[in-house]
Amino acid sequence: MKKKLGSKNFHYPTLTILAGANVNGKPNYEAIAWAGIMGMRTLYIASGKSHYTNRGINENKTFSINIPSVNLVKKTDFCGLHSGNNTDKSGIFESFYGVLGNAPMISECSINMECELAETFTIDDHEIFVGKIKETYCDEEFMTNGKADLLKVQPILFSFHDSTYWKIGECFAKAWNIGKEAK
Amino acid sequence: MKKKLGSKNFHYPTLTILAGANVNGKPNYEAIAWAGIMGMRTLYIASGKSHYTNRGINENKTFSINIPSVNLVKKTDFCGLHSGNNTDKSGIFESFYGVLGNAPMISECSINMECELAETFTIDDHEIFVGKIKETYCDEEFMTNGKADLLKVQPILFSFHDSTYWKIGECFAKAWNIGKEAK
Repeated sequence: MKKKLGSKNFHYPTLTILAGANVNGKPNYEAIAWAGIMGMRTLYIASGKSHYTNRGINENKTFSINIPSVNLVKKTDFCGLHSGNNTDKSGIFESFYGVLGNAPMISECSINMECELAETFTIDDHEIFVGKIKETYCDEEFMTNGKADLLKVQPILFSFHDSTYWKIGECFAKAWNIGKEAK
Repeated sequence: MKKKLGSKNFHYPTLTILAGANVNGKPNYEAIAWAGIMGMRTLYIASGKSHYTNRGINENKTFSINIPSVNLVKKTDFCGLHSGNNTDKSGIFESFYGVLGNAPMISECSINMECELAETFTIDDHEIFVGKIKETYCDEEFMTNGKADLLKVQPILFSFHDSTYWKIGECFAKAWNIGKEAK
């Protein structure tokens, strides 16, 4: 029996990422669950207008998306609890820079994508930063046969309504394939 | 040791959803993994310009996001394998309508969100449809204490590079909480 819940957003779980930007010349990292894919090499993050990160992205026109593994959950959640407005987060992780030169990335994260800002627009009180991926980095220890391996990456999934982090579970089917068995 | 992989998108896994729209007066459902959250009640889907679904959304200014559970993986994947341009997908699921009247939703899906089109823009060869959630529906069997319960919902996660579907795993930490233990 379907129940009406009002205009509630249950589009969860989402991938937890750390968005990186240089602000006042120092790396800052924001934990974000409102981020995703818009095209083959196009990603976005939604970040509250008042957030510290936004200043850096608007100034430099670059940002990074870093994928933390479950072993980094404490530091990741710390970056969600504390704003760069009050807390210097530049020393939490080891940072490195890539081809763009001013999009800080996190050495400890399995995967890093440095993005050039392509478009910015506003939805409610959030700025939507759309970025083109310029280069992607992955640590060899998280790869199998030259590809990032989800079981090694062990990303952190996030659910808003109960404020929880989840692991990925079993790989149970092949996409663009199992549907052949339908009907 | 970090390896450069080129401008590869590893923002996975994502939630697999079925986007619903009426096209030529009939329900059509598209399997989409490029969808996400832009605001508290604002969602988007990215759908290739040539896709059948786009016609209906552009005409009606409404669409739905339906969350299939793992037991619906064959029908879900079928909706990704076959375009409404060639295949009538109106009878695959039982459809129902809500407050908007012309955004078809799937009875068998645990969660349904009907959205009013707020904005459309183009990224590469995809139309990005941004929708405001007008009403959300959840079957009682997927809820605990009045809230959608991820363990009951059993959503389908998707990874592009190895074309795989994944289950969610263990809930292992509280968000906005475990970070207090950092440092």
